[in-house]
Amino acid sequence: MDMENLGKLAKAASVSLARLSTKEKNNALNIIADTLTANSADILKANEIDLENARNNDVAPAMYDRLRLDEKRLNGIISDMRSVSKLPDPVGEEFDSKVLENGLRLCKRREPLGVVGVIYEARPNVTVDITSLCLKTGNACILRGGKETINSNIALVKYIKLGLELAGIDPNAVQYIEDSDRKYVSELLHLDQYVDMIIPRGGANLHRLCQKESTIPVIIGGFGIGHIFVDETAKLEESVKVIQNSKVQRPSACNSVDTILVHEKIANEFLPMLAKQMLQDKVKMVAHGDVAYKLLADVAADLVVKGEEKDFDTEWLSLTMNVAIVSSLDDTLNHMRKHVASHSDAILTNDYNNACRFVNEVGSACAYINASTRFSDGGQFGLGAEVAISTQKLHARGPMGLKELTTYKWICVGDYATRS
Amino acid sequence: MDMENLGKLAKAASVSLARLSTKEKNNALNIIADTLTANSADILKANEIDLENARNNDVAPAMYDRLRLDEKRLNGIISDMRSVSKLPDPVGEEFDSKVLENGLRLCKRREPLGVVGVIYEARPNVTVDITSLCLKTGNACILRGGKETINSNIALVKYIKLGLELAGIDPNAVQYIEDSDRKYVSELLHLDQYVDMIIPRGGANLHRLCQKESTIPVIIGGFGIGHIFVDETAKLEESVKVIQNSKVQRPSACNSVDTILVHEKIANEFLPMLAKQMLQDKVKMVAHGDVAYKLLADVAADLVVKGEEKDFDTEWLSLTMNVAIVSSLDDTLNHMRKHVASHSDAILTNDYNNACRFVNEVGSACAYINASTRFSDGGQFGLGAEVAISTQKLHARGPMGLKELTTYKWICVGDYATRS
Repeated sequence: MDMENLGKLAKAASVSLARLSTKEKNNALNIIADTLTANSADILKANEIDLENARNNDVAPAMYDRLRLDEKRLNGIISDMRSVSKLPDPVGEEFDSKVLENGLRLCKRREPLGVVGVIYEARPNVTVDITSLCLKTGNACILRGGKETINSNIALVKYIKLGLELAGIDPNAVQYIEDSDRKYVSELLHLDQYVDMIIPRGGANLHRLCQKESTIPVIIGGFGIGHIFVDETAKLEESVKVIQNSKVQRPSACNSVDTILVHEKIANEFLPMLAKQMLQDKVKMVAHGDVAYKLLADVAADLVVKGEEKDFDTEWLSLTMNVAIVSSLDDTLNHMRKHVASHSDAILTNDYNNACRFVNEVGSACAYINASTRFSDGGQFGLGAEVAISTQKLHARGPMGLKELTTYKWICVGDYATRS
Repeated sequence: MDMENLGKLAKAASVSLARLSTKEKNNALNIIADTLTANSADILKANEIDLENARNNDVAPAMYDRLRLDEKRLNGIISDMRSVSKLPDPVGEEFDSKVLENGLRLCKRREPLGVVGVIYEARPNVTVDITSLCLKTGNACILRGGKETINSNIALVKYIKLGLELAGIDPNAVQYIEDSDRKYVSELLHLDQYVDMIIPRGGANLHRLCQKESTIPVIIGGFGIGHIFVDETAKLEESVKVIQNSKVQRPSACNSVDTILVHEKIANEFLPMLAKQMLQDKVKMVAHGDVAYKLLADVAADLVVKGEEKDFDTEWLSLTMNVAIVSSLDDTLNHMRKHVASHSDAILTNDYNNACRFVNEVGSACAYINASTRFSDGGQFGLGAEVAISTQKLHARGPMGLKELTTYKWICVGDYATRS
């Protein structure tokens, strides 16, 4: 693959994309959706090859399920694309406008980033999602999905490009890296002349690779140890429900909780209550310290193991969580600073001062008071869509929607104004 | 130097800085200013050593002037620090607040980035400026100035730290890399565990180094070829004045113009007018194409040379500029896309459609209609101060003030809310 050329073509396409009106972009989204629908048999056939390869390679059932398309799923994905056409277009918005004393008129105007590179896991829906969000914001994109879905993705991109052509848009607006060789990821990360932003969606290793290698700004995200601190004034029954929701509702999600920190003053009462619920939900508890171990094991012995320090740095992504006893809010905050509290973390409390201090002082992208960490999601937050969840501090933090796929420029208007 | 430890100390200081009230931060700025004033003799003595070394090393007069302090200059620098104490504090601002259907209350709250690393040229004032802006926004900073000002900077940081202590603030909030060995820059760029943002202030080489090596998000800025397009409907006399201002007022600035593109329909009339003024201002003109050469050389032969393609990619930073004739706005935009129009660029025109298209389509951080490019500056734009001028598209673009030294977190408040 000639990555340089791929970047060049995407860049050229981004120039014409930036000129499109909202109506033209929405129209294109619907034409692409129609094209995907009309060719769904072909797409499902390509997916069947991926599924067969997966069966031959004995991939894990969770992975198999993720890469599997059927008519209903494909229709859902296509319908999401139509939904994006109904979202408000952030491009063109003017803000922070002012007139300077010298008469110069200034504003910031929102515009597309240009070209966005996205590296993602084996989920064919992401191919369509990212295409929709980038097209809606006037960005070209270069996509690289997991090798397990290569046939599905090639088919999807084929019909996306056909749809773009039917809509009169440069089909180079969506580029796919068809070769699974890892070296192309590396090359993508160095196309800084053509690519404006890299979004890695995947595990910590991929993020680390991008952070190390990329000469293009990267949005680091998704990874973080989720904490819930149950303060001494928390409502205990309700706290069990919030923890249950944060752990059990979708354990594989990046916003599920990993570590429960319980104030020592309520540990005796609360931990058995928690253990009882976790027993029902079959949640494995990694207990830290003898007191926590005993209180939990007395109720749910088969599900409790003794934890080590390194467990506090583990993102479980499954029905497992740490449980530890802490002596204060300060103790909690120190623990969280040591153990990557960068994503979504909650305090359960009725203490006003503690609630305020918690949200002020935690390093999380999303800080919760008396709520489940599972809400951290573009859809839940009312952004209409989600590109990624950023855990870095530059550009965007937390769930990223359409607006976060844009930048702004300063527009400065004078009457042949000169600086004195 | 133990850079790991330096990062750790800065990170720890940033935690306590983030807790300070605006009043405490302003108070600290004034105490540091007092401390610098009280010790100005000592600071000037240290500067004298740098000046002596500079004389011994025959540094260029411009550089010598930049690193020179005297009582008046030092007072000016200190007074700028007091001015920062009077600017509004962006930290704590809440925005984009909403209540979701399920009752969850959301907002984004502005907070410090954490630790900011700044690598800059041999200008001692930057040491104080960056300290002020970081302290005002609750950020710790790690500074690395040019080796030519090492003694001045060490003295300045000594009294900044003393001032911090007098104000009851952790003096590790401001760290200085005292060893001039380049390897420490490299080490700084890999302290991603402790440092949240790198701002390189300096030439294209430094930016390239940071872009390549840093595992921390970098703000690329300062570099770009400045263009002014004189459209066929421009007012010609006024256009000469805007070009003069953009080139002559401070030729060494990054927002000074590098290339003048003149519409072919007015070239015969305009280029001799321009040459006449440039002759007075002693501006060297690099003419592209025979027609432009002849029109300019007829008026100012001694100042006109024939240009080559590579001159279009040269940031002159001096009394030199390219002059070329173009056939249309499209021709202009294509030229600018090829030649790094990323910083500040202007159209001079009375054509409404061309003005609109120009600001929409140029890739510049600051796009001007009928105004000098020299306005691109935090002070001029009313930001009160300037950290850098970003020419990248992520996080911030154009002049960066206090707000751009902050991030936000999502604050989410519920009543033991769970996701269904």
